[in-house]
Amino acid sequence: MTGPEPSAASRTRRSRLRALLTAAGLDAMLVTDLINIRYLTGFTGSNAALLVVGTDNEDGSHPDNDAGDDGDPQTRFCTDGRYTTQSATEVPDLPRLIARPCDRALLAVAPSGAVGFEARSVSVADHAVLAAAAKDGGIRIELTPTFDLVEQLRAVKDAGEVDALRRACAVADRALAALIDSGGIRAGRTEREVGLDLDQRMRMLGASDPSFETIVAAGRNSAIPHHQPSTAVLARGDFVKLDFGATVDGYHSDMTRTLVLGAPADWQRDVYRLVHAAQDAGRRACVVGRSGAEVDRAAREVIADAGFGPQFSHGLGHGVGLQVHEAPSLASESASIMTLDMCVTVEPGVYLPGQGGVRIEDSGVIRPDGYHVLTLTSRELCVL
Amino acid sequence: MTGPEPSAASRTRRSRLRALLTAAGLDAMLVTDLINIRYLTGFTGSNAALLVVGTDNEDGSHPDNDAGDDGDPQTRFCTDGRYTTQSATEVPDLPRLIARPCDRALLAVAPSGAVGFEARSVSVADHAVLAAAAKDGGIRIELTPTFDLVEQLRAVKDAGEVDALRRACAVADRALAALIDSGGIRAGRTEREVGLDLDQRMRMLGASDPSFETIVAAGRNSAIPHHQPSTAVLARGDFVKLDFGATVDGYHSDMTRTLVLGAPADWQRDVYRLVHAAQDAGRRACVVGRSGAEVDRAAREVIADAGFGPQFSHGLGHGVGLQVHEAPSLASESASIMTLDMCVTVEPGVYLPGQGGVRIEDSGVIRPDGYHVLTLTSRELCVL
Repeated sequence: MTGPEPSAASRTRRSRLRALLTAAGLDAMLVTDLINIRYLTGFTGSNAALLVVGTDNEDGSHPDNDAGDDGDPQTRFCTDGRYTTQSATEVPDLPRLIARPCDRALLAVAPSGAVGFEARSVSVADHAVLAAAAKDGGIRIELTPTFDLVEQLRAVKDAGEVDALRRACAVADRALAALIDSGGIRAGRTEREVGLDLDQRMRMLGASDPSFETIVAAGRNSAIPHHQPSTAVLARGDFVKLDFGATVDGYHSDMTRTLVLGAPADWQRDVYRLVHAAQDAGRRACVVGRSGAEVDRAAREVIADAGFGPQFSHGLGHGVGLQVHEAPSLASESASIMTLDMCVTVEPGVYLPGQGGVRIEDSGVIRPDGYHVLTLTSRELCVL
Repeated sequence: MTGPEPSAASRTRRSRLRALLTAAGLDAMLVTDLINIRYLTGFTGSNAALLVVGTDNEDGSHPDNDAGDDGDPQTRFCTDGRYTTQSATEVPDLPRLIARPCDRALLAVAPSGAVGFEARSVSVADHAVLAAAAKDGGIRIELTPTFDLVEQLRAVKDAGEVDALRRACAVADRALAALIDSGGIRAGRTEREVGLDLDQRMRMLGASDPSFETIVAAGRNSAIPHHQPSTAVLARGDFVKLDFGATVDGYHSDMTRTLVLGAPADWQRDVYRLVHAAQDAGRRACVVGRSGAEVDRAAREVIADAGFGPQFSHGLGHGVGLQVHEAPSLASESASIMTLDMCVTVEPGVYLPGQGGVRIEDSGVIRPDGYHVLTLTSRELCVL
C-alpha cells in the first residue's frame, strides 16, 4: 500500500515546497489536501494533515539539502488512531502525532507567524474553526490563503512518479490487448459489458481501480465526447471508442483508442486519418518551452485546415499523475509552459453528431528530445 | 441515468428545504454540494448549482403544496454545456441556466437579502469569489453560512429512496449468494481475489459501483475492523469477514457477514453467538423516539456484559442513502433521534487481535413497528 517513492523523494518534495513558502513570505504551511499529503509524505490513508515549516534561517537561505540535512526538523505529520501502524510504515521519516482533528492538532504546534493553508480545499466551516484556534493559541498565527503551491510542484514528475505512470500505462495497454485477443470487443455485446470486462482485466493486472469511469462508446455514441457506457449493442460497421486508464500506486494512466468493427467505410478512414495526423502534430509540438496554447494549436490547426475545427470541441490534453486531471493544461487559453518531466495527455478528437467520432489519446512524458509516450498500444486503425 | 425519484419527490424536498430556510431567516440558499443537488433535483452530472428561493409570503407561511403550487417559481438550476441534454431530461421542472461557473451565475439572479451557502463544502477560495460577486452585484446580498440543512432532510427517506436502497441491498444479497454458490469463498484464494469477484458480481447484477472499497478479511485479519483486501490466502479454520455494498441509482447498501471455512472452533462459535445476540438487540432497540446513543448502548451492553466491551471498538451504525455514511449516527455520543423512515445500519463487532473477529451488519429502515431489514442474507453462521 505504500507509494512508489522512498522517503528520499518525499523529503526532496518538501524541500522544494519550503522554497516556495519562503518566496511567498510564509513561515509554515498546513497541508490538508490528502493527495498533496500523499505526494509530500507517502501516506495513503483517508485522514491526515501535514505542517511543513519553512527554513529557520533568518536570511531566507536554505540548508544544503544534498548534505542530508533536509532542513525540516520542525515538520510534523498527523493522522488518527486507525492509521497508527500504517503511518509508521509509510511516513517513517517525520514526527507523527495521533490526534483528531488533525488540522487543529498541527496548528497547535505551528510556529508563530504566517501559516499558509490551501484555500481551494479548506471549507469555510473548517477555516472558521482553525481561525478561532489560531486566536486562542497564545502565539500569534496569521492564517494565510495559498493557491496551488503543491499542485505546481506536482506538475513536474520525478523518476519514481514517471515509473509509476509507466506501470499504470502498461496495465492499461495489457488489459486492452487481452480484451481484443479474447474477442471481448465484438458485435452483440453492450457498451457496458465491454467496459466492465476491460475494468476487471485492469484490476486483475494490478490496477487498484480504473483511473476514471471507463468510456465505451459505439456507433453514433462515439460522437459524444464523454459518453457513459450504456446498454447500446455493438454492431458491425461501428466505431468503438474506448477511453480508460489504470490506477497503480496512486498514479493514473489515461488513453483512448478508437477501433472499427468490420471493414471501415471511407468516411471512417478519413476521420481516423485526420485525427491520427493531428495527434502526431500534437505530440511533436509537445516540447520544453512551448506554452500549452501553442501545443494545442499545433494539433487543432491540422483539424481546422481540413474543415473540422468545430468538431474538435475540447482541449488537447492535461497533466496526469496522482490525479487523472491535473496541471498543466494543453488548451487554447492555457498559459502553462511545457517543462522537462511534465507528464501530459495528447488527445485530439473529431465528433460527427449522429454519425460517429474518433479520439486518439496517449499519456507521455516531456523529455529533452520531445514527447515520449508511456501508452504503447499502436495508434494505427484497429479493424476487428 | 436518472435518479429513482420523479420530479414530484424533488419538489417536495425543495418545499421542505424552503421551510427550513424560513425558520433560519434566509431568503434563499445556494446549494453547491453535488449530492444535495441530486437529492433536490435528480441531476446526476458532475457540475451544477441550485438556487432555492424561500417563500415570498411576508408572514413566512407556505403556499399549499398539495394544491400543486409548490411555491418555488424563483428556484433556478445551473449546469454547464456538457450537460445541456442530460439536465433537460433529469431536471425538467426547473428553469435551467447553462453557464460557468454555476455558483456565480445563480448568485447573479438571487433575490436581495440573506442567501445561505453550504459552509462545510464551499472552499475559502470559492467563498471569496462569491463574496466579491455579491458586493459587485448592485443588489444587497448577505452570504450566510449554513450547516447540514439538506443533510438533515436526507436522513429521513421517502418511498422512492427506500425502494432504491432495497434494490441496492438486493444486488448485494444476490452477489454474495452467487459468490458462495460458485465456491468463490474457498481456501487457497486471496482476499483480493474474493473481493474482486464479489465486486464484479455486483456490477453484473446492476450496481453502478461498489458502495465503498469492499473489505475481505480472513483469519487474523478479520480482527482488523477496516482491513483492506490483501494477498493473504484464505485457509481452513479462518473467519472470513466481508463488508460490502452496491450502489444502485445513487443509493448505497452496506452489509457485513462473517463466515467460517471448515468446522468452526468453539471460540469462533462463542464470538459469533455473542455478536449475533448484540446485533439482534441493536435491531430491536432501533425504534422511533430513541436516541442514537440509546440504540448503541442496547447492543453494546450485550457485548460488555460478556466481558468483551473493549473489543467492540467502533459505533453501532450510521445512516445510509446517497452517501454510504450519512446522518443519523448510532454511537455512544450520538444525539440523533430515531425517526420514522430513517435508514440505518446496525453493525456490532468483536475483534480479538491476533486471533480473529466477527461483525454482522444489516441496512434497514425504521418503521412504526420497528426496524425492517433491507439486507436479507441470513445472519446464521455460514460454514463453508
